[in-house]
Amino acid sequence: MARKRSFNSAQILVLIFISFIILGTVLLKCPFSTKVSISWLDALFTSTSAMTVTGLNVVDPIHTYTILGTTIIMLLIQFGGLGIMTFAVLIYLLMGKRISIKQRLIIQEELNQSTLGGLIKLVKRLFIFSIFFEGFLGLLLSIRFIPDLGLEKGLYYSLFHAVSAFNNAGFSLWTNNLTGYVGDPIVNVVISALFIIGGIGFTVMNDIWEHKRWRQFSLHTKLMLLGTLIINIIAFIIILSLEHDNPGTLGTLHGTDKYWAAYFQAAAPRTAGFNSVDIGALKPPTLFFIMILMFIGAGSISTGGGIKLTTFISLLVIMFGYIRRKNEAVIMERTIPDSAIFKGLTVALLSIAIIFVAIFSLLMSERTFSFIQIAFEVVSAFGTVGLSTGITPDLSSFGQCVIAFMMIIGKLGPLTLVLSLTDRDKQRVRYPKGEIFIS
Amino acid sequence: MARKRSFNSAQILVLIFISFIILGTVLLKCPFSTKVSISWLDALFTSTSAMTVTGLNVVDPIHTYTILGTTIIMLLIQFGGLGIMTFAVLIYLLMGKRISIKQRLIIQEELNQSTLGGLIKLVKRLFIFSIFFEGFLGLLLSIRFIPDLGLEKGLYYSLFHAVSAFNNAGFSLWTNNLTGYVGDPIVNVVISALFIIGGIGFTVMNDIWEHKRWRQFSLHTKLMLLGTLIINIIAFIIILSLEHDNPGTLGTLHGTDKYWAAYFQAAAPRTAGFNSVDIGALKPPTLFFIMILMFIGAGSISTGGGIKLTTFISLLVIMFGYIRRKNEAVIMERTIPDSAIFKGLTVALLSIAIIFVAIFSLLMSERTFSFIQIAFEVVSAFGTVGLSTGITPDLSSFGQCVIAFMMIIGKLGPLTLVLSLTDRDKQRVRYPKGEIFIS
Ligand SMILES: [K+]
Ligand SMILES: [K+]
Repeated sequence: MARKRSFNSAQILVLIFISFIILGTVLLKCPFSTKVSISWLDALFTSTSAMTVTGLNVVDPIHTYTILGTTIIMLLIQFGGLGIMTFAVLIYLLMGKRISIKQRLIIQEELNQSTLGGLIKLVKRLFIFSIFFEGFLGLLLSIRFIPDLGLEKGLYYSLFHAVSAFNNAGFSLWTNNLTGYVGDPIVNVVISALFIIGGIGFTVMNDIWEHKRWRQFSLHTKLMLLGTLIINIIAFIIILSLEHDNPGTLGTLHGTDKYWAAYFQAAAPRTAGFNSVDIGALKPPTLFFIMILMFIGAGSISTGGGIKLTTFISLLVIMFGYIRRKNEAVIMERTIPDSAIFKGLTVALLSIAIIFVAIFSLLMSERTFSFIQIAFEVVSAFGTVGLSTGITPDLSSFGQCVIAFMMIIGKLGPLTLVLSLTDRDKQRVRYPKGEIFIS
Repeated sequence: MARKRSFNSAQILVLIFISFIILGTVLLKCPFSTKVSISWLDALFTSTSAMTVTGLNVVDPIHTYTILGTTIIMLLIQFGGLGIMTFAVLIYLLMGKRISIKQRLIIQEELNQSTLGGLIKLVKRLFIFSIFFEGFLGLLLSIRFIPDLGLEKGLYYSLFHAVSAFNNAGFSLWTNNLTGYVGDPIVNVVISALFIIGGIGFTVMNDIWEHKRWRQFSLHTKLMLLGTLIINIIAFIIILSLEHDNPGTLGTLHGTDKYWAAYFQAAAPRTAGFNSVDIGALKPPTLFFIMILMFIGAGSISTGGGIKLTTFISLLVIMFGYIRRKNEAVIMERTIPDSAIFKGLTVALLSIAIIFVAIFSLLMSERTFSFIQIAFEVVSAFGTVGLSTGITPDLSSFGQCVIAFMMIIGKLGPLTLVLSLTDRDKQRVRYPKGEIFIS
C-alpha cells in the first residue's frame, strides 16, 4: 500500500531554488569570498538577495566581499534572473541531450507558459537576448566606468552593473549605489534601459523580435509597452513635484541633474531597485507612492517582481468595467477571461495577505523602527526591489529572516509557492490564444 | 433641443444625504446647541461624523454641546444609521400617502435590494427592530446608568448610548468614551449586543425573524452569523495576546476586566467605534490589526461600514477556490456568480484606491503625525468606525476636510458615490435567488 511520492513541477522549482541559495550561502561564507568575517546569516541574506534579484543588503558588498565573492553574487543574480531551469536546458543542449517531458513541464512552470510547444526555442532566445543586452549595453557603460576606474576595474564594474541591471537585481559595487552618477546621462540611460528591457519580460521581447509591427503584437505586449510608458511618466511627474524642494534628495541638484534623478527614481522602484538619491531622505508621501510602485512591479516572465503590471492593469479594467456597467472585462477589444480574473485576484489578495503578515511580524520584533520604514522594507523585499530606508543591517536576526523569506516568496511568486505546498498535480488553466499573462 | 435633466436614484440619495449634513451643521452652529463657541468647520465635522455614524470628534461632545446639541447629534445618528428614505417612507405611510415607483427605486438603492417587491414591508420591520432594540436594551443600560447618574441624566445617557450603539455610531457622552466602564458586564454586554445586532444587517434580522431555523436561513444570513462569530473570536485572541502586558491598555487591568476589555476592543473596530481602552496607547501591531478589522467592516444593509464582511468572505472564497484549482467560487454548496465577484472586487479596489489617495494627501498636509497615526485615522473614517489615536482635533483644516469627505464616501459606499457621478441610469445587476450581498 506504499504510496509513491513524486514532486510536482512547482515543488521541484522551489527545491532547486532553495538549493542554489544554500550553495550560494556556503560559497559566500568561505574565506576566499570575504575580506572581513561575516556571519552565516549575513551570507544567507546576501545569497538570498542575489538569487531573488532583490538587492537588499545587510553588509556593504564592496567592503565585505572579494572579487571572487562579488563574482559569485553576479552569477547568483544571473541564475536567479534568468531562471535555473533555463540554464539547465542550455547545458543539456550543449551536451546534446534530449529534454524530457517532465523537464519541459518544470520549464513551463518557471516561464509561466500555457503550452509545451516552442519552449526550447523560447529558452534559446532568452539566452541570446540576455547576452546581447548585457554585453552590448555593458560595453556602453564602460565608456563611463573605464575613464573613472581604469581598464580592468572599469570593465568589471561595467559587466557587474549590466548583469545587475538587466536582471533587475539592483546590486551595486558602490556603497551608495548609483548616487555618484545621479546626473550622468550615460549611466542613467544605459542602466534604466537595461532594467526596463529586462523587466518588460521575455515574451514581450520575443513578440517584438518576431512580429516587429505594433498591429501584430499580442495584447500582452501592447499592454506592457503602453503600461510601462504611462506608469513611468506618471511616476516621474509625481516624484519630481514631491521631491523637487527636498534638500535631502532633489533639492540640492541643479539643471538637468534634477530631472535625471526624478526619472531614474521613477523607473527604478518597479523591481530594479537601484537608487541615485538617498531613499531614507525621501518625504513620507514619496515613500508611500514608491511602495505602491514596488507592489505593482514589472512584467510577467521577466527578471522583475511584484504582482506584475498586467495583473494590475487587469484589476483596473475589471473595476472600470463594473463602474461603467459592463459585465465583462474588456480591453483593446479583447475580453479578459474569468480564469485570468480569478488568478489576478488571487495573486493580489495572497500578496496583500503575505505582506500584512510580514509587516505584523516585524512590528512585533522591531521596536525602534517606524511603521513606514518597516512597511517599505517588507514591500521592497516582496517586490524583489531592494530599495530601503537603510534599516536592513539593523534589523534583528528574526527580522532579517522574515525579509529573506519575503524575497523568496516574492521571487517565486506567492501562487507558485502555495501550489508547491499542495499535493495533487496542477489542472492547468489553458488560456485562449491572444491572452495576457497574469503574475 | 433642451435635454431634460433628471437625477438617478444614486444621485438623489447623495443629494439628500449632503442636505442633511448641511442642515445638521447649521443647527449645531446655533447658540442654543453649544456651551462654547465653535467654528463652522467644527460644526460641519460633528454633523458629518453623526450623519455618517462614524464618531470621530474634533471637539468633545459633552463639554461643547448643550442637551439640545447632543440631541441633534442623536437624531442625526438615527437618520444616518437607518437611512433617510426609510424615514420618509414612515412619514408618508403615517400620512396615508402612496409610495411612488420613483421613490421605491431610491429606497431600493438605499437598502441595496435587487427587487422592488416587499420593500415597504422591509422598511416597516426595520423600524420595529430599531425601536425594539434601542428601547429594550436602552432600558437594560439604565440599570447601570441611573444609579451612577441619577434618574433623568441616567435615562438620557441610556437612550443616547443605545441609539449610538445600535446605529454603530460610537459617539459617547463621556470624554473618554467607555473607558470608565471597561470591566462592567452590563455595559459591555448591552453595548456590544446593540452594535453587533445593528451591524449584522437588517436583511439578516428579517431572515431570522421570518424563518427562525438555521436550515431555512439564506446563504447571506448564514455567512454573516458564522463570519461575525469567527472573526470576533480571532480578534479577541489576537488583541488579548498582543495587549495583555501593555501597561497603557490591558496591562493594568485585573481579573475579568482584562477579558472584557479584549472582547470589547475586538468586537468594536468593525464599525462600532466605541473604545474601553486608550486607542493611542495600543502597540503598533495591534493598531495595524485593528486597521484591517476596520477595513473589513460589518454587514451589508446594516448600520455599519467598511467593505463589508460578506465582500471579504467572497474574496477569500475566490482566492482559496483558485488555489484549490476550482474554476468557480463555491461556498456552502452555492456558487458566487460572476456579477457578485466583479462587484466585490470593484468595491475592494475602489476602497483601497480612495484610502491610498487620502493617506497620500494627509502625508503631504500633516507633517507632525506618523504614518501609522494617519493611516489609522483614514481607515477609521472610511470604515465609519470612529476609533482614533487622538490626532483628529489637531489635524489641519485641510486634513479635517479630507477625513470628513472620507466619512461620507465610507457611509454612502464608494460604489454609490461613483455611480452617482455617472449620468445614465443603472442597469441593475439582478442576483439569482439565495444570493449574498456585496457591500
Ligand atoms: K531588485
Ligand atoms: K462608528
